[in-house]
Amino acid sequence: MGGVNAVERVPKQDRSRATRQRLLEAAVACLAEHGWAGSTVSVVAERAGVSRGAAQHHFPTREDLFTAAVEYVAEERSTALRALFPQGAADRRAVVAALVDLYTGPLFRAALHLWVAACDEDQLRPRVTELEARVGRETHRIAVDLLGADESRPGARETVQGLLDMARGLGLANLLTDDGARRDRVVAQWGVLLEEALG
Amino acid sequence: MGGVNAVERVPKQDRSRATRQRLLEAAVACLAEHGWAGSTVSVVAERAGVSRGAAQHHFPTREDLFTAAVEYVAEERSTALRALFPQGAADRRAVVAALVDLYTGPLFRAALHLWVAACDEDQLRPRVTELEARVGRETHRIAVDLLGADESRPGARETVQGLLDMARGLGLANLLTDDGARRDRVVAQWGVLLEEALG
Repeated sequence: MGGVNAVERVPKQDRSRATRQRLLEAAVACLAEHGWAGSTVSVVAERAGVSRGAAQHHFPTREDLFTAAVEYVAEERSTALRALFPQGAADRRAVVAALVDLYTGPLFRAALHLWVAACDEDQLRPRVTELEARVGRETHRIAVDLLGADESRPGARETVQGLLDMARGLGLANLLTDDGARRDRVVAQWGVLLEEALG
Repeated sequence: MGGVNAVERVPKQDRSRATRQRLLEAAVACLAEHGWAGSTVSVVAERAGVSRGAAQHHFPTREDLFTAAVEYVAEERSTALRALFPQGAADRRAVVAALVDLYTGPLFRAALHLWVAACDEDQLRPRVTELEARVGRETHRIAVDLLGADESRPGARETVQGLLDMARGLGLANLLTDDGARRDRVVAQWGVLLEEALG
């Protein structure tokens, strides 16, 4: 009997996980497109094709849903980034371009809406602050690995941090208009400077 | 008689200008503290100690008031920045630090709220896009002047642009927590890189 239950349980868990993923992906897309004010659990549930009750079973509050969504998609992006460069820093300029790409898509847009909403919402602020620190640390770790930066060298850590700050700023510059042409030139130039700085 | 009218008119114009400035400053403070959703002409008028009618005389729409406010304060900051370095680039690292400071105060916070609101509001988007381009060009011009960058040298223009993107990213990193200690280290290191890059 235990065996039979186990067999039955697996597809149910799979279904539950698939539902959860659909909700998380819908939440990020919703946040990126409509901002915090336009993003509720109901809107996301409808977009994901899930009942409101099922959505609330997975994510009891709106804060739970949207912080989990930004974290989930950030993790997916981190995994994809590492997979792009399985051997580490073959070409640093390609790594710089890929890092900057992290900040110009819907994930950055969604995260930005969440950050700005967290300024004014007491329930959201501690959650987002904690999330930002966690995602920031992970992105820094990936950047250091892929760039092959030796953090024991004075300034190397701050060079990488500044690069990620620049990437974030480039994301912001891309918010209202397509900043791609200018961005490519900035990324090319700072790729050269970074190559020199990291040695 | 013309002389008397002129004398009477001057103080009235002064009063009108002072009212306008109070409204603009109150609008930026309001936007920085309460975000776009919490920022209406009425709230700003009350904060500035001005009647709602007087506020609407100066700024017929909410979009007029808040885009004018961000532009006004950005101009004030630009003037103050130039005044800090009347001789140009005596010390490039000090200039880098001062440029980054532009992005960590209430003005950046207010502008950020406006940008993010403009993503979702059709009436606001073209105004803010145009404003962002104008303020961005002016900031770039100041940065080039103060850093003594020779834009005819290949890469110099993009080096300065990347620095301003980094400054914007540092502003974002300072949104929910005080990022001052980390920021100082990043600014010090990027000051060194910039010094080498600009020669």
